[in-house]
Amino acid sequence: MDSVTANSVATTTTGTFHFASRLHAAVRAKGTAALVGLDPRLDWLPPDVLTHARDLHDDPIARAAAAFEEFCVRLIDVVAPLVPAVKPQAAFFEELGADGCLALARVIRYARQAGLIVICDAKRGDIGTTAEAYAKAYLAGADPLAAPWQADALTVNPYLGKDTLEPFVKVAVERGAGIYVLVKTSNPGSASFQDRVADGQTIYRHVAQVVEDLAAQTAENGYGCVGAVVGATYPQELVELRAAMPHAPLLVPGYGSQGGAAADVAAAFASEGLGALINNSRGINFAYRTGTFAEQFGPRQWEAASEAATKQMIADLAMHAVKR
Amino acid sequence: MDSVTANSVATTTTGTFHFASRLHAAVRAKGTAALVGLDPRLDWLPPDVLTHARDLHDDPIARAAAAFEEFCVRLIDVVAPLVPAVKPQAAFFEELGADGCLALARVIRYARQAGLIVICDAKRGDIGTTAEAYAKAYLAGADPLAAPWQADALTVNPYLGKDTLEPFVKVAVERGAGIYVLVKTSNPGSASFQDRVADGQTIYRHVAQVVEDLAAQTAENGYGCVGAVVGATYPQELVELRAAMPHAPLLVPGYGSQGGAAADVAAAFASEGLGALINNSRGINFAYRTGTFAEQFGPRQWEAASEAATKQMIADLAMHAVKR
Repeated sequence: MDSVTANSVATTTTGTFHFASRLHAAVRAKGTAALVGLDPRLDWLPPDVLTHARDLHDDPIARAAAAFEEFCVRLIDVVAPLVPAVKPQAAFFEELGADGCLALARVIRYARQAGLIVICDAKRGDIGTTAEAYAKAYLAGADPLAAPWQADALTVNPYLGKDTLEPFVKVAVERGAGIYVLVKTSNPGSASFQDRVADGQTIYRHVAQVVEDLAAQTAENGYGCVGAVVGATYPQELVELRAAMPHAPLLVPGYGSQGGAAADVAAAFASEGLGALINNSRGINFAYRTGTFAEQFGPRQWEAASEAATKQMIADLAMHAVKR
Repeated sequence: MDSVTANSVATTTTGTFHFASRLHAAVRAKGTAALVGLDPRLDWLPPDVLTHARDLHDDPIARAAAAFEEFCVRLIDVVAPLVPAVKPQAAFFEELGADGCLALARVIRYARQAGLIVICDAKRGDIGTTAEAYAKAYLAGADPLAAPWQADALTVNPYLGKDTLEPFVKVAVERGAGIYVLVKTSNPGSASFQDRVADGQTIYRHVAQVVEDLAAQTAENGYGCVGAVVGATYPQELVELRAAMPHAPLLVPGYGSQGGAAADVAAAFASEGLGALINNSRGINFAYRTGTFAEQFGPRQWEAASEAATKQMIADLAMHAVKR
């Protein structure tokens, strides 16, 4: 970490440059830590979005990419007044090839212009200069023009080792960006390797220790630009990992559709609703398709359904999750 | 793995559909297991490539993407008669944004049309339908038109757990494609988590066991469509892992520039030069910049330098690495 000169860069523009400070300013401004995933899935897009795309393009891939972009842009219009941040899922865009990659770039740019913090969920990881190339591709940080995908933060996979996280941290520090390292993921099979006990600790705790060290080294106002992904579906591990990584902002997936409840994610917050973002993707993106919001709104009012679902989540977190 | 019906799909077109059978046919045809990485780096591109790109575009990003494409296409022309497979590194293309993603797609298509097996080194990994989206984006398999990036195989990160590998395996089986799971990577810090000992075995051995199970379940002619990445920089682990995964084709990075020698990679082969590909990226891509090939050829004859470096690697492997 010799090359990471966190303090020299970060403290020159306190609050407007460092990722965690920008993130927490946004959380305070919106009064919630709700994070909305942007997960466009072609089969589930509302009919009006599909109709518009059909009018624009003959090519089915270009059509799908246009539909993804319109869906995400309209969803951003709905949630931008309500939440501090969004998390586009890169995989769904990549499935459409280069057209999808361009749509992802446009969606991220639109979200930034709407004042949102953008966490690109692409789970990248590689060694040396290759890791640095990924970092430079996605981590724009404080200056949106610094990278082709103008994200504030990127999710990163730690399997290759600590030395492979450092190029991401270096770029994050330089640009006022952040990374969220996968520590304990929300899927049922995350135990396969993450829960193995080595030298008296689970692998996810070993990863957490590396994350905490990097977070502490890059901290401003108590939080580093290196955070951790910890699934809401494992509430006990969430308690353990919040304590193990006091300097790391957490990204907590698994709330809602995957089964995590607001009470489960309460442990993610360090204090006053700071230190964590709670993600909901499907439950907000496709609120119009299931449950009470489907009955109340239906496909023609899908934006109203997404708005209601977002407000419900915010109220749920305020009532059950945020420590006072 | 209930959904993976490997045999029903794979045995209908033996030798022309299953990834490992297609790979080994190519290895036999070329008489070598040398794999050429495609790692375009702007600072190191030959002057003529940069000049052509300057004439084509004013925009620096479009210019860089055009240069990457021309460099890779000309390198493919050099190596296609000599080696069975190439491995483009996605990160360098992604650093150029959507233009780079399109260039990557074109390079992969060109390599396929030149008769090469293409392994896209993108190290993807995610859960459920997200993993499936990545698989569908990159794994074209036997039919190049099946995916936007027309690769035969994709590198995959196992940290999220066994359940997150299965969507990749399902798509690979359906399409006659392959995946290479990161097991023991070539970087100095790969020990951070991979070498931790849990339940009497290193984490990389636990990953290897999952890979071997999936490889055995999807095997045709002795090899599955699930392989493993094992670094040449760890020769002892290579011996151990070859024995632990008899059904897995190996992808061995770290030969050449990273310090792995032909004698070190001998252990990767199961028999008769099959069961492994040995990768060299920088040593072939930029042979014109360093060592004896720089003196002999120089920047104007960079293709001749790359050709000589490829032939030297092939001879080196034939003499020191292939078991007879």
